[in-house]
Amino acid sequence: MKVTIFFGSKSDTDTMKKAAAVLREFGVDYSSYIISAHRAGELLAETVAAAEADGTEVIIAGAGLAAHLPGVIASMTVLPVIGVPLDGGKVGGLDALLSIVQMPKQIPVATVGLDNAANAAYLACEILAIKYPELKAKLKAFRAALKQEIAAEGGKGVSI
Amino acid sequence: MKVTIFFGSKSDTDTMKKAAAVLREFGVDYSSYIISAHRAGELLAETVAAAEADGTEVIIAGAGLAAHLPGVIASMTVLPVIGVPLDGGKVGGLDALLSIVQMPKQIPVATVGLDNAANAAYLACEILAIKYPELKAKLKAFRAALKQEIAAEGGKGVSI
Amino acid sequence: MKVTIFFGSKSDTDTMKKAAAVLREFGVDYSSYIISAHRAGELLAETVAAAEADGTEVIIAGAGLAAHLPGVIASMTVLPVIGVPLDGGKVGGLDALLSIVQMPKQIPVATVGLDNAANAAYLACEILAIKYPELKAKLKAFRAALKQEIAAEGGKGVSI
Amino acid sequence: MKVTIFFGSKSDTDTMKKAAAVLREFGVDYSSYIISAHRAGELLAETVAAAEADGTEVIIAGAGLAAHLPGVIASMTVLPVIGVPLDGGKVGGLDALLSIVQMPKQIPVATVGLDNAANAAYLACEILAIKYPELKAKLKAFRAALKQEIAAEGGKGVSI
Amino acid sequence: MKVTIFFGSKSDTDTMKKAAAVLREFGVDYSSYIISAHRAGELLAETVAAAEADGTEVIIAGAGLAAHLPGVIASMTVLPVIGVPLDGGKVGGLDALLSIVQMPKQIPVATVGLDNAANAAYLACEILAIKYPELKAKLKAFRAALKQEIAAEGGKGVSI
Amino acid sequence: MKVTIFFGSKSDTDTMKKAAAVLREFGVDYSSYIISAHRAGELLAETVAAAEADGTEVIIAGAGLAAHLPGVIASMTVLPVIGVPLDGGKVGGLDALLSIVQMPKQIPVATVGLDNAANAAYLACEILAIKYPELKAKLKAFRAALKQEIAAEGGKGVSI
Amino acid sequence: MKVTIFFGSKSDTDTMKKAAAVLREFGVDYSSYIISAHRAGELLAETVAAAEADGTEVIIAGAGLAAHLPGVIASMTVLPVIGVPLDGGKVGGLDALLSIVQMPKQIPVATVGLDNAANAAYLACEILAIKYPELKAKLKAFRAALKQEIAAEGGKGVSI
Amino acid sequence: MKVTIFFGSKSDTDTMKKAAAVLREFGVDYSSYIISAHRAGELLAETVAAAEADGTEVIIAGAGLAAHLPGVIASMTVLPVIGVPLDGGKVGGLDALLSIVQMPKQIPVATVGLDNAANAAYLACEILAIKYPELKAKLKAFRAALKQEIAAEGGKGVSI
Repeated sequence: MKVTIFFGSKSDTDTMKKAAAVLREFGVDYSSYIISAHRAGELLAETVAAAEADGTEVIIAGAGLAAHLPGVIASMTVLPVIGVPLDGGKVGGLDALLSIVQMPKQIPVATVGLDNAANAAYLACEILAIKYPELKAKLKAFRAALKQEIAAEGGKGVSI
Repeated sequence: MKVTIFFGSKSDTDTMKKAAAVLREFGVDYSSYIISAHRAGELLAETVAAAEADGTEVIIAGAGLAAHLPGVIASMTVLPVIGVPLDGGKVGGLDALLSIVQMPKQIPVATVGLDNAANAAYLACEILAIKYPELKAKLKAFRAALKQEIAAEGGKGVSI
Repeated sequence: MKVTIFFGSKSDTDTMKKAAAVLREFGVDYSSYIISAHRAGELLAETVAAAEADGTEVIIAGAGLAAHLPGVIASMTVLPVIGVPLDGGKVGGLDALLSIVQMPKQIPVATVGLDNAANAAYLACEILAIKYPELKAKLKAFRAALKQEIAAEGGKGVSI
Repeated sequence: MKVTIFFGSKSDTDTMKKAAAVLREFGVDYSSYIISAHRAGELLAETVAAAEADGTEVIIAGAGLAAHLPGVIASMTVLPVIGVPLDGGKVGGLDALLSIVQMPKQIPVATVGLDNAANAAYLACEILAIKYPELKAKLKAFRAALKQEIAAEGGKGVSI
Repeated sequence: MKVTIFFGSKSDTDTMKKAAAVLREFGVDYSSYIISAHRAGELLAETVAAAEADGTEVIIAGAGLAAHLPGVIASMTVLPVIGVPLDGGKVGGLDALLSIVQMPKQIPVATVGLDNAANAAYLACEILAIKYPELKAKLKAFRAALKQEIAAEGGKGVSI
Repeated sequence: MKVTIFFGSKSDTDTMKKAAAVLREFGVDYSSYIISAHRAGELLAETVAAAEADGTEVIIAGAGLAAHLPGVIASMTVLPVIGVPLDGGKVGGLDALLSIVQMPKQIPVATVGLDNAANAAYLACEILAIKYPELKAKLKAFRAALKQEIAAEGGKGVSI
Repeated sequence: MKVTIFFGSKSDTDTMKKAAAVLREFGVDYSSYIISAHRAGELLAETVAAAEADGTEVIIAGAGLAAHLPGVIASMTVLPVIGVPLDGGKVGGLDALLSIVQMPKQIPVATVGLDNAANAAYLACEILAIKYPELKAKLKAFRAALKQEIAAEGGKGVSI
Repeated sequence: MKVTIFFGSKSDTDTMKKAAAVLREFGVDYSSYIISAHRAGELLAETVAAAEADGTEVIIAGAGLAAHLPGVIASMTVLPVIGVPLDGGKVGGLDALLSIVQMPKQIPVATVGLDNAANAAYLACEILAIKYPELKAKLKAFRAALKQEIAAEGGKGVSI
């Protein structure tokens, strides 16, 4: 039960850490690599292949601007690739979002919201959970706890 | 190995058929329902629960405009939900795309490109393939065939 | 003469307080709940039903990102639902605006401007005023006062 | 129980007819006027005042481009004004949508989706229904019928 | 040779001052009023009429959000109206820009760039200059000075 | 009392004819030139200078895509330049609109709506009318006729 | 003096032919390949390397949607790569434009306008012309002819 | 081997310095001028001609807002012109991007990403390298060093 996380630049580390935190919370192993698709394509291909050989079942890739990283990885493997568009501060983040989600037919990337690395990890858990029942149980418990928390707090009414 | 497909309006049928065609090509069982999240919420909840009880492992949901269907389904299950934004002809399709991809933390939707129902099905296959090795083999063969086809055609050079 | 206010996250409290302030100014009772449509759908349905049973005549719902809350509430009731798109800082706020306003036929949400919770409350008052003449009188007096204030200040000319 | 419909150009008639059809279906009286806010402002003011004197309780206003009509009417009355942004074919309809929904504080317009005149009428009915119980009953019956229709058709599963 | 400046909110004063500064620089008389089109429509009509009676030849109007002020003034007079879209911080300022520039046929607003009140004043001077030769001479001198300044500074080459 | 019309491509002729028609209706002389700013800059400069020498008082310039023509002309003269953004079918026409309206300080272009060449001509008439009283009278009569037409047609109520 | 043209899908052929036509007009050799970056990455790398070995000095690459092809090629070579964003009909073509132009630091793509394959070829000629004086002479003659054509036609004035 | 850099305003200096830094790193001579296309068109034409006469082989031009500078320069020379759109803080930078990239047929501008002046310089080097083999060698070495750096750092895996 293993996820590999890729991102393209050291400056994306803080955002991508949110994915790692969720994976740890659910007991999912992960490794992380900072490899730019455009600057080190062969190394990326080797690392993706090695990750797959080493048991990786889901890949998370975060990228900004003309965010090719998730799509390029998706072209290298049939593992599910989850793309996290990172808002680089221009055009409202549409550059990264469209560069990741508008993939051509046959080579999909599972895209989550802008800068929403946590959701990439939740989605990875949901995907793994179709194979690993214990993870599905954890997810269900997590969702139930969320509901209880809301019922105990804002759901009882708040004073504004 | 089963996928359930939801969409909100009969008029989306032709687009969503492209998902069904891919699933059939890869030998994945599927059922389809036309249920609007906003017009029949309880029925949707019951149908999602029944689908899950019946062995569904991945859900595909297509919707246009304020495309809530994928997110509402995601709130009802921990199965991976793949959202297909359908372009209703306004604001360039940004309404459906943003309504699906910008989900809040903890409740992800795996979003694919505008009107790209085929990619939702390819993604569903990739997700199922982490559990079903025979499907992974089919996906790898499919990718290899794609490469060969390109090598035999446009990859040899074309006259323009 | 009662309004119920819903929003999805504690972080939206400051913005939604502006609606509450207007309602208090016009002597309209209100209750407030923080319930995420995606994380606690059943609780939301119960709370909407209880609010309606308790005499709520208009609902205000604020949400950001893929802002499904107003639309999901609209699917649960025939009370008028006023949606406040909250700007989450990405794509200029278009995500919340389009997710709220582009509702499918038959299930409308009365959408006001981005982060404009005050206007949601003014609109709620206008709606209630078709039934409660004393509220209509207050609204007319308020508008007249606005005009006088403008006439007495900038309308007399300013030095710039 | 009366609605007055305004729009600015004869060419918008077909779209605005969809509002009229819904109002007739629910037994709500309505009148319609084609008056441009920019070309005949005084006439508009007189007609709004006359409509209000004549018992109008909700106003629907459709407009395209720099769609000022709903906002200008809202400035003339404290009746609830529902704005229908009409897509004139440029910038994806964002011009009309933003010109209607982004009203300043204190003067709200209840905005519905692009070209969605039918939803303006459903919203008008929901607003009137807080005063007229028979209309509320009709709305509830309508929603129930919608659910049954979906349950009897796409909700039973479709073959795609 | 007189310009009247309108804007809708005290908070726009700093931006609109840039128009006043240019008018003073070119010796053009001006008056300024803060009158919201939506909150004090009749006062606006009276003030526009009085300004016209008092010799105003060009009007400058600045507005943000659903920026109706310039268009509403344009509907009240055949004087040329210059609109300044003010960026309110949402959707990149597109709301004000489109609300001002996309006017219907027959009622134009001369639109300048976002927050570019200075350019509204330069444009007002160019318009007045077709009638007042001394102003045309000043404008030509100003342009010539601009060219000389550039030739004397960055045009000689800079070290970067 | 003369206007010169420029546009960049023969394919824009039909749209720009609408400006010419309005000028003829108001008895304003005009000449028209098809000169691309990018392909024939010197010729453009000569023709602008000749037009000015020949008594042109207002310039109308229509352009699409990276629509530099109005701005380049504005840099060559202190006559008021009215820009008509022409929608070339991409990005909703935002390319031409932003390329024309977002001019730098000191060199304004009076921008009208997308493809709205008629409004460029109405604006040209309003500008000329501050100098030519007979034109102002015509504009006032035209506006009055518009009001009467609306009062006699849609303003009396229509059946929809 | 050789250009190699790449594009990702047979359906882009008609648009890309416009680049070929310009290259032929200027006597520049070219070859063309249809290779999808996502479906046949290794073949693409081999073909780019072979083209470079064979004397290619400039590469033109056209792509739509999440248009990674130009950027992926740019990562494989230090030859100048010209990207042509192809409008796939969604979000106004912004997907392809942003996916191509917003490349990360150090790996540029020279981007031209949407569907403007002809300009990619003119740019390729301008680049080659810094090395090949005969091509520069042709470009200058071509520009001069353009100017003469305009001077002889629309520049003399047209009747509209 | 010479590049000339143009930009329109002293306030763009810091961004454009990033281009200069890259050129120095690769040993390419450059000169810089601050000349506004709109304020000093003739001076611009003279300076471009002088630069070309003085051996300039590639031009870099940065501009914001209605960013005409690169296109205007492209109309004055057949040298390759690289445009850098500078984000002026409105509409997400789309104004400058579209004003530069959407050039008409025959007069291309090689556009790089928003504020990405460094990439303009890398692209200039790639263009010059087709003529100067020593520069091509430097570029190849630079790319190889980038790959090694990534392999030695993030490519070995990071802890997040």
